Amino acid sequence: MQDKLSFVPLGGIGEVTKNMYLYEYNSQILIIDCGLGFADETMLGVDLLLPDISYLLKKIKSGSSKIVGMALTHGHEDHIGALPFVLEPLPKFPIYATPLTSAFANEKLVEFGEKPKVETVDFGDDPIVLGDFKISFIRVTHSIPDTSHIFIQTPVGNFYHGSDFKFDLTPFDNKKTDFDKIIDAAKEEIVCLMSDCLGAEKEGYTKSEQTLSKNIEQEMRECEGKFILTTYSSNISRLNQAIIAASRLGRKVCFVGRSLIKAAKIAQRMGYMELDKKMEVEVGDIGKHNDKNLVLLVAGSQGQENSALARITNGEHREIKISPKDTVLFSADPIPGNEISINSLIDSLSKMGIKVIHSKNSESFHVSGHGAQQELMLMMALARPKNVLPIGGTFTHMARYKELAKKQGFSESKILLIEDGQEVVFDKEKISLGKKISLGNVYVDEVSEEVVEHFVIRDRQKISKEGVVVIMAEVDAGNGQMVGNPNIIVRGLSQAESSIINRRLTKELPKAIRGRRGRVTDWVYIRKNIRETSERSIFIELHRRPLILPVVIEV
Amino acid sequence: MQDKLSFVPLGGIGEVTKNMYLYEYNSQILIIDCGLGFADETMLGVDLLLPDISYLLKKIKSGSSKIVGMALTHGHEDHIGALPFVLEPLPKFPIYATPLTSAFANEKLVEFGEKPKVETVDFGDDPIVLGDFKISFIRVTHSIPDTSHIFIQTPVGNFYHGSDFKFDLTPFDNKKTDFDKIIDAAKEEIVCLMSDCLGAEKEGYTKSEQTLSKNIEQEMRECEGKFILTTYSSNISRLNQAIIAASRLGRKVCFVGRSLIKAAKIAQRMGYMELDKKMEVEVGDIGKHNDKNLVLLVAGSQGQENSALARITNGEHREIKISPKDTVLFSADPIPGNEISINSLIDSLSKMGIKVIHSKNSESFHVSGHGAQQELMLMMALARPKNVLPIGGTFTHMARYKELAKKQGFSESKILLIEDGQEVVFDKEKISLGKKISLGNVYVDEVSEEVVEHFVIRDRQKISKEGVVVIMAEVDAGNGQMVGNPNIIVRGLSQAESSIINRRLTKELPKAIRGRRGRVTDWVYIRKNIRETSERSIFIELHRRPLILPVVIEV
Repeated sequence: MQDKLSFVPLGGIGEVTKNMYLYEYNSQILIIDCGLGFADETMLGVDLLLPDISYLLKKIKSGSSKIVGMALTHGHEDHIGALPFVLEPLPKFPIYATPLTSAFANEKLVEFGEKPKVETVDFGDDPIVLGDFKISFIRVTHSIPDTSHIFIQTPVGNFYHGSDFKFDLTPFDNKKTDFDKIIDAAKEEIVCLMSDCLGAEKEGYTKSEQTLSKNIEQEMRECEGKFILTTYSSNISRLNQAIIAASRLGRKVCFVGRSLIKAAKIAQRMGYMELDKKMEVEVGDIGKHNDKNLVLLVAGSQGQENSALARITNGEHREIKISPKDTVLFSADPIPGNEISINSLIDSLSKMGIKVIHSKNSESFHVSGHGAQQELMLMMALARPKNVLPIGGTFTHMARYKELAKKQGFSESKILLIEDGQEVVFDKEKISLGKKISLGNVYVDEVSEEVVEHFVIRDRQKISKEGVVVIMAEVDAGNGQMVGNPNIIVRGLSQAESSIINRRLTKELPKAIRGRRGRVTDWVYIRKNIRETSERSIFIELHRRPLILPVVIEV
Repeated sequence: MQDKLSFVPLGGIGEVTKNMYLYEYNSQILIIDCGLGFADETMLGVDLLLPDISYLLKKIKSGSSKIVGMALTHGHEDHIGALPFVLEPLPKFPIYATPLTSAFANEKLVEFGEKPKVETVDFGDDPIVLGDFKISFIRVTHSIPDTSHIFIQTPVGNFYHGSDFKFDLTPFDNKKTDFDKIIDAAKEEIVCLMSDCLGAEKEGYTKSEQTLSKNIEQEMRECEGKFILTTYSSNISRLNQAIIAASRLGRKVCFVGRSLIKAAKIAQRMGYMELDKKMEVEVGDIGKHNDKNLVLLVAGSQGQENSALARITNGEHREIKISPKDTVLFSADPIPGNEISINSLIDSLSKMGIKVIHSKNSESFHVSGHGAQQELMLMMALARPKNVLPIGGTFTHMARYKELAKKQGFSESKILLIEDGQEVVFDKEKISLGKKISLGNVYVDEVSEEVVEHFVIRDRQKISKEGVVVIMAEVDAGNGQMVGNPNIIVRGLSQAESSIINRRLTKELPKAIRGRRGRVTDWVYIRKNIRETSERSIFIELHRRPLILPVVIEV
């Protein structure tokens, strides 16, 4: 067998979320991250996407490969959220992460009725040996504490897995990027830097988290009612900033919303959030305090339908009533596709006369967790890799990253722009593109936490755009002829269209069936005939393609 | 009858589009604008919204009021697009607009098989007397030429209808805002300024169109293939900028896409666009020219599914093939809700290695047509109205406009924030809120150009999120009991959910029906019973609310 390393992204390239990457050395597989994807509004009624692991399963089941371990870079859902789904069908293997990441990941497993499986490593620990791989965690800054890059040593050379980061030189928790360790890795020579590229369109540097504290405190001071801040529940630093401002201004803090309460609890338990017990108020006790003395940290910054913030806004929250003197601060960027829901929340609040601050037009109340152009180029300059391969962004971001890499002196052939499922093969002499694995969309429904088949989504899309037509026909089993008129139900089309469909099919269907006489032996054929005839008629008449459900009743 | 004027917005307040405003003086009604609304992605399969004119129709049909005339402020779809739908059921009345606006509006009517009905007025013309109203058109700048404000004189006082504008001091066509006429209007005393408020969140001034010319030319110079620019078809100035750059660089121009070709034709005919015939290339002749000598002005800047740009990107355009040397410039802001489609277009182009420039992160290639804070305050300062009433924005924009008005010295009671359908009554002494008209959503389907009933949308939303369950039950007419098991079709739900529904309903439905014995007289009741039982069972079991279609077959 040839001595080579294969890099196979199962998710996270050409998209921002659903991060999962395989590093294969001969028969050994190292996995980095195991994240969820977020469905956009075209994926009706589905909320989450999983990486498609059929390629991995096949390799394991056939016995041709073995998973030697997994490392998680940080505690965001798009890097750890798929764990309960992905681990279940796989054999056991060790999983490593830094303290907060490991706490979030284990909490997730427990929530799904499994045991905690992620082992905690500290940034100072020795490299971990996993088969022929050796991995080290390098501290970087991002919008969640304990984020790390992974330096991966293999017999074929060294790789630097540089997922989500920015170089915040004054991070809120004062835990700075470990530049020394990056330089040390560079000295060992890096074959390829896999780099975050989400900020590649933004000029300059991303502002430090620190810059927000003053602005948040100022708004809190001016607010004469409840001060309500909403952000991602994992944005521990942002929550800490609000807590510090609250304590300075003598306000008490209340966490609202399941995900946020959970995250705050973990952060407090692990010492990432300091909050005097006397300063915390339970949701049920809010009524006992003057509005002016309260800060609410509320889940739902993406405008999610059933989130705490949406319920508060719509007057459906049992304990929390909004008042015109309150201020609501959205301290999070909208995930593309959520703009409508977020705008409509903001608008409802504005209509009630409430002061709403959102980060759309300024960096005063939210900064990105991803580095901008200067930081991405600095990463290249520090790591001095032979090749670069952008991850965690769309093709638009990758194209811009390529321009940055060119400015840093990388020639075209050293900048690897690939797609999900595209294997890249590194051997001692050269780099080549390997096989292309075809990846499917795996959907999860958030209510049932069950994987949704692809055809279900297709049906929903079709119905939602074009409506549905149910056709019930009674057919005489003896002679194959239709008895009476078909019974037709049309939904999702206008009344005028319905009556056209009714008229037309009542005329056409008996005719279509008439062609085939004699005893019915193949009921499937009759159903198919009805469906195809109806599809054609409706398309000719109305230029529509509703979902047709033929029901044949045997008489 | 009391001497009073009523302002009644039928659309355009609390929303950006669907502009239509009534000014009623006793029994006389003056209408300003008649625009379409754009559906967002929650309104499945519908593309357009119309203002609900039932209030107007009732007044006209009862003979209690008469429409004395209509004025159109500018040629954008959200101000003129509803004309063919709205005029049809109404009696004839005169309609006025400035030259380009009137050309666009008449083109629209002709397209719908009607006669041109809009009369052209010039900015220099005398005021037009319409019953007891006197109206004057005042030139302002916006993203389409010939945009105007309307000064409305009534026996109760004067009103300034200041819809969509910015104060571009160096407009591309050099036709500047007529500040003199605004000042003259102010001298007559203005009771209320109805003002555009869309830019109220943006600090400072909106940049001039002029600032873009240099950047567009620079990108065109550097492009080694086809230079493709996409913008709203009505953005005549932007198209002109591209044409001038093309002529300087010796490139030929080709218009691509039905809406854009139409707009360019009107603009050329009326002298708003100068293009040497020798410089224009028909789409069919594109193959005869070197890519480097071409500029394509293409429709589809919002990522619309069947637009020219989408077809070019997906390789489905017959004449135009995209090449990696091409540059594509998006020179338009995304309308909220279109981000996903636009991002996906940009991403597909980036993936092919094409240089894509979009205005998301910079004002170098697109500027808004709406004035920012300084301009909105300047408008107040120039018009010196007694009251202000923001229009053409969401409540978020209105709330910010209110802050600006306060800075300009307006007291709380002089800043009127209202909703669509809210009548404001102005009489000589005071201003008061009048009746609240309830307005429905009127949907138009773009394919059939037919109004879509509201329940159709509701059904589609329900089905798209929760699926559909068709239940066929054979019921014995003699004793009201179910014969055999119900036949159940489930769509849009997973297989696991389907089998649960099947199992549960097969058990529950016969039981539910059993309660009522004896000859069936009320089939509707049986259907209702089946529906409600099924809804309850399915919700208890799965926490879902699919659309239930019960079908009872009498045996």
